[in-house]
Amino acid sequence: MTPTINSDRLWQSIMALAEIGAIPGNGSCRMALTPEDTAARSLFLGWCRDLGLAHQQDAIGNQYLRRAGTDPSAKAVAFGSHLDTVPTGGRFDGIIGVLAGLEVLRALAEAGVRTKAPLELVNWMNEEGSRFRPAMMGSRVAAGAFSLADALAITDDNGVSVAQALAESGQAGPLPPAPRDWSAWLELHIEQGPVMEATGADIGIVVGTMHARYFQLSVIGEPSHVGPTEMNRRHDSLAAAAEVILAVEKIALAAEPNGRASATWIENIPNARGNVSHLTHLHCDVRHNDAPAAVAMEGELRAALAAIEKRRGVRIDVDPYATFGPIAFDPRLGALLRQKAEARQLATRDMIAAAGHDSVLMAPLFPSAMLFVPSVGGITHNPKEYSTPEQVARGAQVLLDAVLELAG
Amino acid sequence: MTPTINSDRLWQSIMALAEIGAIPGNGSCRMALTPEDTAARSLFLGWCRDLGLAHQQDAIGNQYLRRAGTDPSAKAVAFGSHLDTVPTGGRFDGIIGVLAGLEVLRALAEAGVRTKAPLELVNWMNEEGSRFRPAMMGSRVAAGAFSLADALAITDDNGVSVAQALAESGQAGPLPPAPRDWSAWLELHIEQGPVMEATGADIGIVVGTMHARYFQLSVIGEPSHVGPTEMNRRHDSLAAAAEVILAVEKIALAAEPNGRASATWIENIPNARGNVSHLTHLHCDVRHNDAPAAVAMEGELRAALAAIEKRRGVRIDVDPYATFGPIAFDPRLGALLRQKAEARQLATRDMIAAAGHDSVLMAPLFPSAMLFVPSVGGITHNPKEYSTPEQVARGAQVLLDAVLELAG
Repeated sequence: MTPTINSDRLWQSIMALAEIGAIPGNGSCRMALTPEDTAARSLFLGWCRDLGLAHQQDAIGNQYLRRAGTDPSAKAVAFGSHLDTVPTGGRFDGIIGVLAGLEVLRALAEAGVRTKAPLELVNWMNEEGSRFRPAMMGSRVAAGAFSLADALAITDDNGVSVAQALAESGQAGPLPPAPRDWSAWLELHIEQGPVMEATGADIGIVVGTMHARYFQLSVIGEPSHVGPTEMNRRHDSLAAAAEVILAVEKIALAAEPNGRASATWIENIPNARGNVSHLTHLHCDVRHNDAPAAVAMEGELRAALAAIEKRRGVRIDVDPYATFGPIAFDPRLGALLRQKAEARQLATRDMIAAAGHDSVLMAPLFPSAMLFVPSVGGITHNPKEYSTPEQVARGAQVLLDAVLELAG
Repeated sequence: MTPTINSDRLWQSIMALAEIGAIPGNGSCRMALTPEDTAARSLFLGWCRDLGLAHQQDAIGNQYLRRAGTDPSAKAVAFGSHLDTVPTGGRFDGIIGVLAGLEVLRALAEAGVRTKAPLELVNWMNEEGSRFRPAMMGSRVAAGAFSLADALAITDDNGVSVAQALAESGQAGPLPPAPRDWSAWLELHIEQGPVMEATGADIGIVVGTMHARYFQLSVIGEPSHVGPTEMNRRHDSLAAAAEVILAVEKIALAAEPNGRASATWIENIPNARGNVSHLTHLHCDVRHNDAPAAVAMEGELRAALAAIEKRRGVRIDVDPYATFGPIAFDPRLGALLRQKAEARQLATRDMIAAAGHDSVLMAPLFPSAMLFVPSVGGITHNPKEYSTPEQVARGAQVLLDAVLELAG
């Protein structure tokens, strides 16, 4: 019996998981290590237990589920993604990568197929970075790109540390985070953009990622009263931050179509209705297909900040706290995915990922590749995020076909 | 013995009170009904008890301290201000109005002078509106301009209601909030601007206030992902709010020197680093010496909002939730204050108040007036806020002289 994806079973698992942390409009909110994320992890582990998978969990909360192969000396073929979401998340971003991986293992079990190499399914901790920054935290720590101690000390906006959240949710495992014994890493994900839908592609072969640069900014002004304080005596950090937000947007518009820039997070102090603000924190990023162009975008940002500082008599501190990419994924794995998709009469298209993914951290360590399925309307990080059951199943089938070839 | 202000005693009381909720740079943070505000109220009540004043407190937390007169049928002469501060408050805004009032009563006690009319010293609850909006909450409710039930239901940014904060702090008194039996209301305050210092005035005779209009705005966009979402598919509520902030500033610049406008408070959703924001709340106000000019500023604001809505495909809901002024204070009381200041060889200057004050709520009910003392450097709502001991004492002396004449 040839292993085949069961589209209904996969879809039902995706829908069942989406009920945990459900939000209006068919979305999900399961920020990392919240009770909702923890409940989703438990449901997932229960399904894995039913399949007889061996469970290991590391100290940063990554979950590894292993199916033994026939050759004890062979390295594992690994695949997966993440189950955590942004606050206004949909049902697909990350989730389909984990649950298509589960469906691959279910289809193999159903067909009675045992591969030569072991298979390992992964749910990475805190890919989204909505609660604890930086994003891709679990894979970052496992890859050794970020120390466990530094990650554990990070706090959310309420002052809760990663260490505390791991302990309270019971998600800190005994395994020291470290690269695993893998021969290859594969990740299925939604495109999160409109290109595949517009061009009729069924499977996106992700050949690489943008280069992204992240900044935490602090605009330091001077407190004063909204009533009697004339404009020329104000050093309003919120007004200065507004200029920064629009400067970021202007840089983004100039960098289209291959670059993006976004200001997303703001904290304003004292945030009192009778006060001109004196301290405004802001988060922004710049990213581009071409790494030097992203560096040039940072230069434009810094020039804009200097002009705002001078014009308004404020100070703007810049913390360039993280980057990701550019990554070129393994071309041989990309070719394998393309071949498997074409063998199923699926239209493929080479893609550059604009978002960060856990695969970015795996690419330097293992031959790695990603495949995309279309996002209806290109909508993502939004309850309206959607891919059809057929689109998801096609991606899962290509993943299965590639895993079978890699694992022998 | 002629009653005379004891400048040292007054200054020491101001400095002692400032120790409660002290913040770096000589400032104070005592937002309404916090433990710090409650402690300041207790210290103040202890001083009043030492003077034998009769204490009453109403259900919204206003404190009334009464010194009996010799004529039981005479209406009271009332004065005071507020002890709460903004988060980055100084030692003077509001506080000197209450403590100069206390010093008036101490000086009378020391001189053995009993007035014909009773005297009533007031500490109004939540003048600043930093924690619970609208500002001037206690005087607003006492004046009947805002219902007690509506005020009690208002919540702070943490969801704590005024009712809950009053109960937990023990500040809800038994008295139903209502206008009192007063013949006149006087309030001493700092100028909070640079005009008196620049023109050498000792005492500002506040003849009226600006007209201010307050708005709570909600910018409604669409959630999306910062990476793959191209600029033309974004409806970024934070970027739209940034344009609103700068539009408010532009309106303010055009309205100088007699108008102001400010955007001060922001709440951004989801405020996640991987998400284009979809809902941003913003607070702003416009104000002008000339009420029709303030109304015209609102018109400019609404036109700017409509243009932003159209250009960005966002919706902006406007809640014009409160106004204050314009108020013309009682000219006879103003003349009395001017005469008392001049009798002490003090230089006076007529002023228009740009900030809201509790006196705005009293003016329609009683003959009311305010007097200002200079603010060094015009700095206010800032730990650096300062008036000299001499400046404060001069204001307190004019208050005492006027109270003596009014109360007989």
